[in-house]
Amino acid sequence: MPAYSVKVIDADIGHYRIVIVPPSIAAEVGLCGGCKARVRFNGKETTALVAIDPSIKEKTVTICRWFWEEIGKPERVDLHPHVIPQSVRFIKEKLRGRRLGYEEIYTIIKDVVDGVLTDTEIAAFIAAQESVGMDINEMIHLTKAMVETGVKIDFDRPVYDMHSIGGVPGNSKVSIVAVPTVAAMEVFIPKTSSRAITSPAGTADTMEVFANVEFGLEELKELAKKTYGFIVWGGTLNLAPADDILIRVEYQLMADPLSQMIASILSKKISMGVQNLLIDIPVGREAKVESLEKGRELASIFTQVGQGLGLSMRVALTYGGQPIGYAVGPALEAREALQTLLGNGPMSVREKATALAGLVLEMAGIAPRGAGKATAKEILASGKSYEAFRRMIEAQGGNPDIKPEDIPVGSHRAEITAPMDGYVTGVYNRAITLIARAAGAPHDKGAGVLLHVKRGHKVRKGDVLLEIYSNSETRLDEALKLVSKVRPITIEGMLLETYPEEV
Amino acid sequence: MPAYSVKVIDADIGHYRIVIVPPSIAAEVGLCGGCKARVRFNGKETTALVAIDPSIKEKTVTICRWFWEEIGKPERVDLHPHVIPQSVRFIKEKLRGRRLGYEEIYTIIKDVVDGVLTDTEIAAFIAAQESVGMDINEMIHLTKAMVETGVKIDFDRPVYDMHSIGGVPGNSKVSIVAVPTVAAMEVFIPKTSSRAITSPAGTADTMEVFANVEFGLEELKELAKKTYGFIVWGGTLNLAPADDILIRVEYQLMADPLSQMIASILSKKISMGVQNLLIDIPVGREAKVESLEKGRELASIFTQVGQGLGLSMRVALTYGGQPIGYAVGPALEAREALQTLLGNGPMSVREKATALAGLVLEMAGIAPRGAGKATAKEILASGKSYEAFRRMIEAQGGNPDIKPEDIPVGSHRAEITAPMDGYVTGVYNRAITLIARAAGAPHDKGAGVLLHVKRGHKVRKGDVLLEIYSNSETRLDEALKLVSKVRPITIEGMLLETYPEEV
Repeated sequence: MPAYSVKVIDADIGHYRIVIVPPSIAAEVGLCGGCKARVRFNGKETTALVAIDPSIKEKTVTICRWFWEEIGKPERVDLHPHVIPQSVRFIKEKLRGRRLGYEEIYTIIKDVVDGVLTDTEIAAFIAAQESVGMDINEMIHLTKAMVETGVKIDFDRPVYDMHSIGGVPGNSKVSIVAVPTVAAMEVFIPKTSSRAITSPAGTADTMEVFANVEFGLEELKELAKKTYGFIVWGGTLNLAPADDILIRVEYQLMADPLSQMIASILSKKISMGVQNLLIDIPVGREAKVESLEKGRELASIFTQVGQGLGLSMRVALTYGGQPIGYAVGPALEAREALQTLLGNGPMSVREKATALAGLVLEMAGIAPRGAGKATAKEILASGKSYEAFRRMIEAQGGNPDIKPEDIPVGSHRAEITAPMDGYVTGVYNRAITLIARAAGAPHDKGAGVLLHVKRGHKVRKGDVLLEIYSNSETRLDEALKLVSKVRPITIEGMLLETYPEEV
Repeated sequence: MPAYSVKVIDADIGHYRIVIVPPSIAAEVGLCGGCKARVRFNGKETTALVAIDPSIKEKTVTICRWFWEEIGKPERVDLHPHVIPQSVRFIKEKLRGRRLGYEEIYTIIKDVVDGVLTDTEIAAFIAAQESVGMDINEMIHLTKAMVETGVKIDFDRPVYDMHSIGGVPGNSKVSIVAVPTVAAMEVFIPKTSSRAITSPAGTADTMEVFANVEFGLEELKELAKKTYGFIVWGGTLNLAPADDILIRVEYQLMADPLSQMIASILSKKISMGVQNLLIDIPVGREAKVESLEKGRELASIFTQVGQGLGLSMRVALTYGGQPIGYAVGPALEAREALQTLLGNGPMSVREKATALAGLVLEMAGIAPRGAGKATAKEILASGKSYEAFRRMIEAQGGNPDIKPEDIPVGSHRAEITAPMDGYVTGVYNRAITLIARAAGAPHDKGAGVLLHVKRGHKVRKGDVLLEIYSNSETRLDEALKLVSKVRPITIEGMLLETYPEEV
């Protein structure tokens, strides 16, 4: 029987796994404050930081509740001094430029999931990917290891999905239009999506305006009986659990290495049983990919890695040089998506959604190659996409009768107007993202930016360029302050310069 | 006045800076458990991890004693949400291969010292050095930044020093012989040295067998009035404090990038006012540098960086393919050093110590170039080195009359004997290091390995090859178990193979 009884406390120190022990236990095991210990319980093992508290008199090990629950609520645990795990050696070899094999990458990812590696060691793994990089085989290994260390779902029928690598504000609404357009043709598309990390709205955030997006695995199987398509949040499903931990460290380092991005996307899709996948790569100024050439390179890598994992893959390069549509932020985008499904959306949303849905319909054999977009446009125009979306909302527990104007947006509003006559020469992704987030998106669902113009539009002095929405007056002020700093929109008169200069 | 009063507790969580707050403060400031907070006090600022403890009812911020003392014992503090510091951006750019300038590297090192960067972020900086590397200018910047963020001592006269990059067991005794040989000629050599991190004995560990090695800066100035040489531990002096933090993270990653090793050595020396420095690079199988070619490369880098920082530099490549002398471990090495000073040490110790001391004497103009070693040998043979060492011991508060046999070694002892007649074909650095550490070195000063043979020696079956010493019977057993696993010594008969093979 393990040596020490466990005491549980409610202190919250986030994801840090800490065991608090009295000096007597520290001396017995040979632990120091701030060093790591192996914690053993019920035949399993994890790693935790040691805190020594001289005020504890009993010989107990104190553990925070979430950590205790995660390791299966053991009543007693053993402690042992930490040894440097083998995976650290592999990470170091990767840093020195060596290619890793499957067993080595699996060992690293398993230790990430089991809590054996600390953030320090994981940071070195992210850093190695950022600086040394991975080849196609390593990316295949990485993806596979992330799938193998998580839960996999099997739907017993062909599964289709689409995923955008993101980076362009206003993009979350595209799936809201495209997924029901695919599902309308009885092609099964169980889309898991993410919440926003650095963007103003993830597809899950926007879908949540209409319906519940948090389901367990068994509930998903029930959903699949009711509807050909759904859009849910992937976060609660324990698909590729390494990913959440790796993303947390990436966020701290502001790093997003290519190999990790690809493995992150593909591992979640494979865990969901997807066999046919469309990847959308927005290309343009201030998108994640800024040139067509780089877009093609990335498309080739995605295809090779996906095919190496047995996926049927297509990749679309789409225009991402300015926001998609006019609305940015969960509720504003939900409105615009619903308008598009009802036939009154902006052209850029309709074009992109039908192009993507069309490619999936081609993969599914519903439309011949090259004819998918036209088919998707017909489906959208006929109202079948809207009907399919109503079934999705209903299955996910929302109100299918909702109208665009029923969707509440931020109660505070401000307008930015044109300072001069001229033409819009730029609407900037990064600035729009920053302003929408400053206004409170994605946590404040009503917060965001509603554009009135796009690149190339003609404006007169005093015309509204954009509106900012927020439910908090303070945040609206913050967002307004940003406008002058980050320049979301530029306008120039037709006459740019005159020669000779006036003297 | 800062918002929150401070409560101090005695819990020990090592170097982790943690603030424990009640939910009321977390909500007020906008902090989550496990996220980082900026802690402001007396016009200064640092970063700490947030733990939220619902059992705390008062609106106080709880801080561990060491952390509280480090930040100057503030009675009240302010808390603010953490923002990602600029230095993280520089680290990420380094990961992507960009050369950093002085201001950028200084910003990183300053944030390391001020506790703004967490281990995760520091790990990425170490990883960048490991994989991308630094050029000569970056190493100069790094060294300078490490000096500028610490304390610098000024002795008001020419300062000489020597430093070995280590990696060879038995090497710690060399300085014990070489430093007094230099000091005997009234050349000022205030040697700061390290305790062992991964070796069986650092020079500070071995010197501590004779005398006190922990002094403050003011005490060092007093020492310098009494003796031309001393050997003290650099750890208490706050010289280049970034180094200790960086080494802690390197140790976790088992990484020791070249640029960080060079900056670590040179920054401590420059902080000690050294203007003339000899670097010793042991070269050989299982040393840090395994070929002469790589040794020359490293020598060139050391010289360029040192000269770029205004140092007069010499670098010696020495033989490091087996242990130096016969003794490994603090007390055993102390004995062998003293024997050498008294004229009865092994040749390899005498040769290496006089070679290094001779080079320093050449730099100081005491011996003409090329004649240093002969001069050093004369000094050693004349007993002047021993006399100088007696003065060092006395100044550092030890007993100058100590004899080699007075030095206590481990009370438990085991012998390993030759299993066959033959010649010693190898004595292996790594295996000897592991066995000595398993026996308890460096913390158990009496623990270690005493070799009876070196490479090329002839042995008969049953001859003693080595002895292991320890003050713990359990540890001695552990060390003995290792012997069969790691093979410290190999023996082969002269007749290796015969042709034709017997059938």
